Amino acid sequence: MSPSQTTPRDSEAKLLHILRVSAQVFAEHGFEATSIRDISRATGVSLSGLYYYFESKQHLLYLIQNAAFSYVVDHLMVRVQGVADPAERLRLLVHNHVEYFLSHPNEMKVLAHEEDALGEPFREKIQVIKRRYYSLARQTFDSLTEEGIAAGIHPRIAVLSLFGMMNWVYKWHKPGVDPDAEELTTAIVGIFLHGVLPGRAESKAVASEIAARGGD
Amino acid sequence: MSPSQTTPRDSEAKLLHILRVSAQVFAEHGFEATSIRDISRATGVSLSGLYYYFESKQHLLYLIQNAAFSYVVDHLMVRVQGVADPAERLRLLVHNHVEYFLSHPNEMKVLAHEEDALGEPFREKIQVIKRRYYSLARQTFDSLTEEGIAAGIHPRIAVLSLFGMMNWVYKWHKPGVDPDAEELTTAIVGIFLHGVLPGRAESKAVASEIAARGGD
Repeated sequence: MSPSQTTPRDSEAKLLHILRVSAQVFAEHGFEATSIRDISRATGVSLSGLYYYFESKQHLLYLIQNAAFSYVVDHLMVRVQGVADPAERLRLLVHNHVEYFLSHPNEMKVLAHEEDALGEPFREKIQVIKRRYYSLARQTFDSLTEEGIAAGIHPRIAVLSLFGMMNWVYKWHKPGVDPDAEELTTAIVGIFLHGVLPGRAESKAVASEIAARGGD
Repeated sequence: MSPSQTTPRDSEAKLLHILRVSAQVFAEHGFEATSIRDISRATGVSLSGLYYYFESKQHLLYLIQNAAFSYVVDHLMVRVQGVADPAERLRLLVHNHVEYFLSHPNEMKVLAHEEDALGEPFREKIQVIKRRYYSLARQTFDSLTEEGIAAGIHPRIAVLSLFGMMNWVYKWHKPGVDPDAEELTTAIVGIFLHGVLPGRAESKAVASEIAARGGD
């Protein structure tokens, strides 16, 4: 079936298939070492069939990165709609991010490893979505820390450290062995907000309160 | 000058030059897309000169990864020697890690992006150093949390989240604009141990203690 004969729905499904398989090939061999011919072989779509969807290998890389970021940002917007509590908004952001990338490890690898491979005008378009995503995270962070932030920590470093915790998961997570998105979210949000130590300040304070009462 | 004419010191300096330049080429173009001929061009060392130091492109990648990890682990061992306080050992680990990779962004990229490119027997050798490094971090973490760990956090997730914060820095850090290794260390250790919120538990407890006293 030639592209001109496909219905819009077929065409969209075919594009999704091409993007998914291409992400896998790029993840395995790297963008630079992969040719459009390799993509054709892996997807089972002819060269002319591929060029119906994109104009160049750069354009294909852009479509993969754009689809992944757009999905993550659009879903987050829907999920946080009407949620006022900044701690809950943060939890939703982490869950949304971790859940998507746990189930899309190839896309995660392509986003992380092939960031520099993208030239203009595609590069700037991706930067726009990334800045939008960072802004969403930063706004949530700023609402959360309205009463102040721990000493010695810049908001920018804090937010990017949160992304570090989330984005490094693809390097170590073993599906079926390591915790799922739900548990990872609890851990990452817990570390980010309160650290790994078990409310040391609280227990110290309780102890001092007891001591104070005993001295009455 | 042929390799056989070089003194050991020349030979070592030349190897370091080859590893540094090769890391840069791999970081820019990816391991798979780079040939030994590219390495020869970039280093200014003839093919036969290169084969004096390594047997294959895989072997070269191994030498780069091994040199970086060995440097980081060996330096850490020296720096924590005689330091008993686990919080200070953790700070030294983070500082050592961040300092090295801020000044070696190409090596960081090659370690992060070309992990899967390494085949046996090299892969296992690198895994051994990485496990040793993880163990060092884990031991420090376990000493630190002897009195317990915050609810909902597994030690493995915690330690790997710490590595996530440290290892993501190369993706966003702008030298001369963003903070240096010292300040980054303070921020990352602070978030990891206590979170980004400003001792909320402490202020609540102080408030309740004051309330308790007022009620006497």
